This record gives sequence, C-alpha cells and structure tokens, in this order.
Amino acid sequence: MEVLDVLNWRYAAKRMNGGKVPKEKLDVILEAVRLAPTSLGLQPFRVLVVEDETVKQRISKKACLQPQILESSHLLVFAVWEKVKPEFVDNYLALMAETRQLNLESLGDFKGMVNGYVERAENSGQIESWLACQAYIAMGVGSVAAAAIGIDSTPMEGFDKLEMDKVLGLADRGLKSVVMLAIGYRDEENDRLAKSKKVRLPAEELFINI
Amino acid sequence: MEVLDVLNWRYAAKRMNGGKVPKEKLDVILEAVRLAPTSLGLQPFRVLVVEDETVKQRISKKACLQPQILESSHLLVFAVWEKVKPEFVDNYLALMAETRQLNLESLGDFKGMVNGYVERAENSGQIESWLACQAYIAMGVGSVAAAAIGIDSTPMEGFDKLEMDKVLGLADRGLKSVVMLAIGYRDEENDRLAKSKKVRLPAEELFINI
Repeated sequence: MEVLDVLNWRYAAKRMNGGKVPKEKLDVILEAVRLAPTSLGLQPFRVLVVEDETVKQRISKKACLQPQILESSHLLVFAVWEKVKPEFVDNYLALMAETRQLNLESLGDFKGMVNGYVERAENSGQIESWLACQAYIAMGVGSVAAAAIGIDSTPMEGFDKLEMDKVLGLADRGLKSVVMLAIGYRDEENDRLAKSKKVRLPAEELFINI
Repeated sequence: MEVLDVLNWRYAAKRMNGGKVPKEKLDVILEAVRLAPTSLGLQPFRVLVVEDETVKQRISKKACLQPQILESSHLLVFAVWEKVKPEFVDNYLALMAETRQLNLESLGDFKGMVNGYVERAENSGQIESWLACQAYIAMGVGSVAAAAIGIDSTPMEGFDKLEMDKVLGLADRGLKSVVMLAIGYRDEENDRLAKSKKVRLPAEELFINI
C-alpha cells in the first residue's frame, strides 16, 4: 500500500468493535515499535501489552471511561524509565557490542557521548521530556504500521498517569506511563469520526521554505 | 513495500551523498508529516524546510558540524509553539468547522476539552514536553514515509536549540526548535553504519504482556 494511502486511512478511532487482532498482525505492530528510531538508539522505555479484560477495566476507570479502551483488542501502554541509570547505558552498549561483534572497549567514545547527552538533559531539566519524546516516536510508528496492515489504533493521552502507574505496578519496574495506543478495529457505525474528513493545516501554513 | 521491510531498511544515516531529493518525493514526505497524528489534532508546530546552502552551513555550525547536514538534500526543522495562545485553539476550531462543514457553536464542548487539556499541561509544568512530543510523532512519521519511498533520513537532536532558533529567526514566529530530520541519500561507502546491524532490544525485554 502507498504510504499516503495508509496515512489517509488511519484515524484515531473513538469507538472500536471489540474484534481481536490476530497474533501475527499484533506481532507486526510490536516489531514496528521495536524497530522505531530513538535518540542514540537507547529505547528508554518499555511497552505494556495489555489484553487482560480486568486490567483493561481498571485502566478504563483511570481514562475517563473512553469506550475504545474496552472495545480495543490490545492496549499498548508506553512507559519510560523513571531515571536513566548508568547500568541502562552499560546494558545498551553491551547489546551493541554483541549485535555488531565489537569490543566493548571500542565503544568508549560513544559511551561518553551518551552519558554526556543524558547529563546535559538532566541538568537542563529536559530529561523527562526527552524520554517521553522517544516513546512518542515509537507510538507513532506503531500506529502507522498498524494502519499499513489494516488495523486501527488510537493514540491516547487522556488518562491519569499516576493512577495508570499504580494499576500496572510501574514504579516497581522503575517506569512511568507517558502515552497509550489502543489497537483494534474501528466501529464504523458508532464512531461518527470514522467518516469525518481529516482536519489538517494546509501545507502552506505548516511548512516554511527556507 | 511491507512496513517491516521499510523499517528494517531505514537507519539514521550519518553520511549522505549530497544527492537532491526530487520535489515529488519531498512532497510525499511533507504530506506524511502533515497527516501524522497529534494530540487533539492540534498540530502545535511548524516545519522549516531548509534547502538554502548558506542556511545549512549556519545550522551545521550549531550542530557539531555533523556531516549529514551539508550532505543532505533538505533539512526539516520541527519547531513548536512557544506558548499555546487562545487564538491558536480558535484557529484550529475554525479549520475543523470549515473542513467538516460544522457550526463553530457545535464545537463548544470540544473547545472546552482542548483548553482544559492545555491548561492542565501548563499548570503541571508539562506543556513544553507535550508540545515537543507532538512534533516527535510527526518527525518519526516523516522518517518512515521517507523510507517507504526509498529516501534516507536522519533524526537529529544534537544541536544547540537556542542558536538554531536564532539562525532561523524562530522567536519572531513564536516558535522553538525541538528536533530535526535530515533528508537525502545514504553514502554507503563512507557511512560505516550503512551496513551495521540494527541494535534493538529483544522483544522479550521491550514488551511486557499483561
């Protein structure tokens, strides 16, 4: 499918029909999330893949009872590191050395760059924002990948993050929720947005040529 | 092309070959950026499309002289609103009313929701992060769209944002730079990363099933 057809087909479904996304399609979406670019390649987040109906109900209560939560097939909850611990960077470098068959020692300069970047973000109060932004890239890529295989998805921010963290026990994992992607099938009959025109700024307003 | 093939082909090119991306392909990438999802549909950013070589040179000096800046075809600089002004929300609602042929009055509840969301983000100190995250989604979607049509791209954060804002006169436009996407063609010969294996967490580590 052409990428612009995919993006025009995609919309944030506010109602879903409860259909289950088959495992092979869910796996494509998750693999897209895994392959999404992140700053320095660090992937500073984890993704909770929620299918359990009881947990979805608890999440629903912390998210204004938005219907697509219970009507979705799966909820992907993106949760970033509470803190960038030195061992996270070390683990990443070890993974890089293993994947690319490099000596860990040869990555010393890169390690300095990563740590320097993180330190500057911490010192300037930007670290939380920076971590969240990486998760948002992956969420967006997941949404596009879903559309490319005919699956609907809804990016969702409208939930109580502290309560979500409690429902999912995220503090114990050193994580904090930032955004959610509901995965499923649009309910064309009951979602008036399913047939609404997409609202987007004209290109002349969005882009400034230099 | 299959979406996972696209994502496996994509990587952050550290060297580009200076080739010019034809207008029809650039337009696909920009249209993808325009169609990317954003919170509430607000698109709270603008994208500077930089082709001017003199401006690229000035940007290069504020971005550690990373070679892909001058070797790229175009630089997309994503810049968010410095502040969410009430008229921005009004303009968005007017665009929605026009696009969907609705009475502006019928959007009163939605307006309240948007303003409430923005106000809570401002009061909790999350507004800057929230704005940046929206731009990151669009940047990521642009990168995937580029790959889908065989164009390389490099998401870039490693630049001095205040200096970038000066180079592009962003304060006068009420904007602040947050992230950049260099667009062009990978230089397979000189970019050792062009043939490196992608480093990604195993699915068992990245995903937590619930």
